[in-house]
Amino acid sequence: MQNFDLYNPTNVVFGKGEVPRIGELTASYGRRVLLVYGLGSVKKTGLYDKVTGSLREAGVEWVDSGGVKPNPVLSFAREAIGTFKQEKLDAIVAVGGGSVIDTAKTVAAGSRYDGDVWDFFTGKAGIEDASPVTVVLTLAAAASEMNGGAVITNEDTLQKTHIVSRHLFPKASILDPVNTFTVPRNYSMYGAVDAIIHVLEPYFNSSDPDTPLQDRFIEGLIKTIMESADIIYRQPNNYNARANMMWGATMALNGIASSGAGCTGFPMHMIEHSLSAIYDIAHGAGLAVVAPAWMKYNAPEEPRKYAQFAERVFDIGGGTPEERALEGIAALERWFSSVDAPVTLEDAGIPAEDINKIAKNANSLSELWGLPDYTVDVIADILRLAV
Amino acid sequence: MQNFDLYNPTNVVFGKGEVPRIGELTASYGRRVLLVYGLGSVKKTGLYDKVTGSLREAGVEWVDSGGVKPNPVLSFAREAIGTFKQEKLDAIVAVGGGSVIDTAKTVAAGSRYDGDVWDFFTGKAGIEDASPVTVVLTLAAAASEMNGGAVITNEDTLQKTHIVSRHLFPKASILDPVNTFTVPRNYSMYGAVDAIIHVLEPYFNSSDPDTPLQDRFIEGLIKTIMESADIIYRQPNNYNARANMMWGATMALNGIASSGAGCTGFPMHMIEHSLSAIYDIAHGAGLAVVAPAWMKYNAPEEPRKYAQFAERVFDIGGGTPEERALEGIAALERWFSSVDAPVTLEDAGIPAEDINKIAKNANSLSELWGLPDYTVDVIADILRLAV
Repeated sequence: MQNFDLYNPTNVVFGKGEVPRIGELTASYGRRVLLVYGLGSVKKTGLYDKVTGSLREAGVEWVDSGGVKPNPVLSFAREAIGTFKQEKLDAIVAVGGGSVIDTAKTVAAGSRYDGDVWDFFTGKAGIEDASPVTVVLTLAAAASEMNGGAVITNEDTLQKTHIVSRHLFPKASILDPVNTFTVPRNYSMYGAVDAIIHVLEPYFNSSDPDTPLQDRFIEGLIKTIMESADIIYRQPNNYNARANMMWGATMALNGIASSGAGCTGFPMHMIEHSLSAIYDIAHGAGLAVVAPAWMKYNAPEEPRKYAQFAERVFDIGGGTPEERALEGIAALERWFSSVDAPVTLEDAGIPAEDINKIAKNANSLSELWGLPDYTVDVIADILRLAV
Repeated sequence: MQNFDLYNPTNVVFGKGEVPRIGELTASYGRRVLLVYGLGSVKKTGLYDKVTGSLREAGVEWVDSGGVKPNPVLSFAREAIGTFKQEKLDAIVAVGGGSVIDTAKTVAAGSRYDGDVWDFFTGKAGIEDASPVTVVLTLAAAASEMNGGAVITNEDTLQKTHIVSRHLFPKASILDPVNTFTVPRNYSMYGAVDAIIHVLEPYFNSSDPDTPLQDRFIEGLIKTIMESADIIYRQPNNYNARANMMWGATMALNGIASSGAGCTGFPMHMIEHSLSAIYDIAHGAGLAVVAPAWMKYNAPEEPRKYAQFAERVFDIGGGTPEERALEGIAALERWFSSVDAPVTLEDAGIPAEDINKIAKNANSLSELWGLPDYTVDVIADILRLAV
């Protein structure tokens, strides 16, 4: 095992009926908050009323900041930071999925900084403070509800990248699986893909061959997420499946799965971010395209871990490690297809002729992401395996 | 899955060479600390010098409070609370295993309370504040380094019981597996038993039949701990095995394994506490005696989960669920024996004639532990299966 620091102070409140605690959980951090949410589904479902009712009861006033879209953009966050400062607010309540929470965290960091918040994303400045954030989660996918990261797209540069800081952990996050019942089937499945790739990044990129506990945790997590997704595909209102999916997605990127794996990097995410930045496709859909290609590219050189994945997750036996490795990747790809996730660029509506353009965009992140080996040529070679 | 709150703000610093960070990690919480440790092995190994050197460098003064013994006692904690208050200290550094950390936490709670600290253990008072605690861990077993619990024995009443509070999470804990190289073989193995039972309590006592992620996490944890213990048994200085054991033991009782399982209770621990309170045996040794008996008592009524345990942890197939359940328990018992842990009262040097005395002692805790069904007769019936 490699040395690591693990710190995760988010107070998770999990289960049905817990939303009315948001007021009380928020009140200790602020009396005047920015209420960040998405394109309005929280108003249709009644969640907005539940949240604001609870805030009101706890004596918390709010300023509305709705309209965050999937693949959230820098311009929205910059504007919200302006509102936050102008209104002299003291905290942020995020009601939504990863896009909304990431926007809230970006506002949290920017609200206590005099320069442009994009400085944090480019490494020009470090985050030394942030306003408190509380969360009501509506999508099982990103795990932003229990980590210190946020991803934003800069529409001017078409760069989609992230910040990570100890100051950005939500203070409290309410995870009621019932709030995911209304998530459309395709987005539910993309969330499952996202969570699976969150744990496969440290699983396959670890510099340490001896992390048995983390390996088993990750394998169990993937099996649980696939089982739950299969049920949700047919029964969107199945509480147990939604609950297991929600908790699985949170646990997939809260620091535990990657602890002890060494500095692993997130190359599948880096490449995918170019797809969703350029084509505005769902992040999970983009990952379903990129991940099998990336795995096919890497497995032949060091098949051991890929073979273990095949054996333990898909019960694939027999053959050589190389054969089992490729069978495991094929099985994962088949599963993605079975839940209607795209597995080729064409499936995702992306022309193969754009491969070089995508590779250049992804390569522009490689220094920032600590992945200098990912040259334009390497990325293009990987993407050609997704044709 | 059942509703739950999960909150664990301890900053874990894991790996070889990390001990010199204790000064810096402590300094933000206090400049004058109580240094709690055990019977002196930390002086022999040089760890004491490393810790105090780091404290000195960070400008932190300390008052020595050595001499905590296994199955730590109330009188020691009371005295240390007196010292803490008299010297007007502001934090506590614990260098040791569960006994030392639990003593430090008891002092932390008592240091900010005017009454007798035992009030917290009997439920007469609630913990509303505590002094900060930092930890350098030397034993993989209790997980006190990453949770809000502490166990103390009251020598006057012979009651061994616990406190749990959000105020008692260590602020930071340094887990260097090298510091466990010198733990004697028997205590290393008892630590493994302790960690295994920590996860089997929620596994078998859960009120929820649908916790697939937690189940797999627990099964993976038990397999990892058994594998690591088998290596440590032969190679006490094997870093990877010590690392996997140490991280496994911490993860076994930091709130994650039991999340979503409902209010499970800790009956195996409750019964064992009477053995170690009365006979001063190692807690892990006592658990190796109590756990198989408790499992044999409970498995016939509801064998499903026991059969799953047998299948997934010991690869036991065939037969009826009842048969697999009993085979799984026998396999665990055999494994305990294989690492020289006692599995009968006689093995542990406890006379079978004392069963009623032990049962009465354990029963005296049953109300406090929320386990009113554990009458003297039930406990005696269970203990008779350990003869």
